[in-house]
Amino acid sequence: MSETLAPWRSLLARSLHLNRALPNARYCQLATLTLEGKPANRTVVFRGFREGSDCLQMITDRRSEKIPQILQCPQGEICWYFPKTREQFRLSGTIILITAEETHIHHRQARDRVWQELSDAARLQFAWPCPKQPRPDFPVAFTPELPSAKEPDENFCILLFEAMTVDHLQLKGNPQDRTLYTRTHSGHWQMEAVNP
Amino acid sequence: MSETLAPWRSLLARSLHLNRALPNARYCQLATLTLEGKPANRTVVFRGFREGSDCLQMITDRRSEKIPQILQCPQGEICWYFPKTREQFRLSGTIILITAEETHIHHRQARDRVWQELSDAARLQFAWPCPKQPRPDFPVAFTPELPSAKEPDENFCILLFEAMTVDHLQLKGNPQDRTLYTRTHSGHWQMEAVNP
Repeated sequence: MSETLAPWRSLLARSLHLNRALPNARYCQLATLTLEGKPANRTVVFRGFREGSDCLQMITDRRSEKIPQILQCPQGEICWYFPKTREQFRLSGTIILITAEETHIHHRQARDRVWQELSDAARLQFAWPCPKQPRPDFPVAFTPELPSAKEPDENFCILLFEAMTVDHLQLKGNPQDRTLYTRTHSGHWQMEAVNP
Repeated sequence: MSETLAPWRSLLARSLHLNRALPNARYCQLATLTLEGKPANRTVVFRGFREGSDCLQMITDRRSEKIPQILQCPQGEICWYFPKTREQFRLSGTIILITAEETHIHHRQARDRVWQELSDAARLQFAWPCPKQPRPDFPVAFTPELPSAKEPDENFCILLFEAMTVDHLQLKGNPQDRTLYTRTHSGHWQMEAVNP
């Protein structure tokens, strides 16, 4: 947790603002490693920054394949393309998992808060049958009782993504602008203009 | 090379068609492994299917970081989100690299053809200074002589992506529809409806 915002934060916030008319502006792609060490890649939804930090928040289901993947290798790279401003952010870093078993009080509170901010429809999905299992013939399996709006479902998890490098490419302009941000051991960020 | 099209091909073609008004509908995210075995992830542009096959074509610069990554580990996963139809395709498979040193005649011809179909602006980028190196102060470095429209630049490479599994998620509908396509050893595709 740093006291000042990372220098790429304001750029990302600006892109989110300028692309806010697009529902998918908050969608990005998170790459992890499978248990066999192969690349895995899926769309995730950005759920804001963790209060008082530069960590990106996402949510997931404990029964999702990315959970054992992250437990085995917490490294990930997010690729985030903003169509309107024609920019790409590549954030490489570490993923911290917050599950129902979390003991850290601040993490528990964050998990409660994100759950409470979800829609009923989003909350309901955590009570659905297990993701990626053969689909049952009885649709009633997908109409469970509405979970509590206050207490997170036991399958509900938060992913916190802590970036160590950020590669920002702006396609507008010729040649395009590309800047690398690297976090040093002391927690400071270095930036460098590089060739696109 | 299979004689019949893979069953997910027509779905992908349909998505490309329905999303054709969006310039970024042809952008997808390709995850690979870094030389240290960490996930890497970047946006690439789909350049059509390789003639007579189900392989996806993309282009890249030989000086790009993904080249040594793919040479060390040819595994990749493409995540492709279509905003208008609200669909995600995850294609997991193997990447074949076609460089200036390619000896296979069909691959050489494919490389020539894709180069010849590029715009002058796209061709010019292969003669720019090395990607991700510190940016030179002299902008003249980015105005090289226009490369031949016929003979590919030596930095020009094609990536062929051969999918082994395809995970198709349609967000429209409640619950969402998700189908897995898996290629068997005999080259046939099996499909299965699974939980979202």
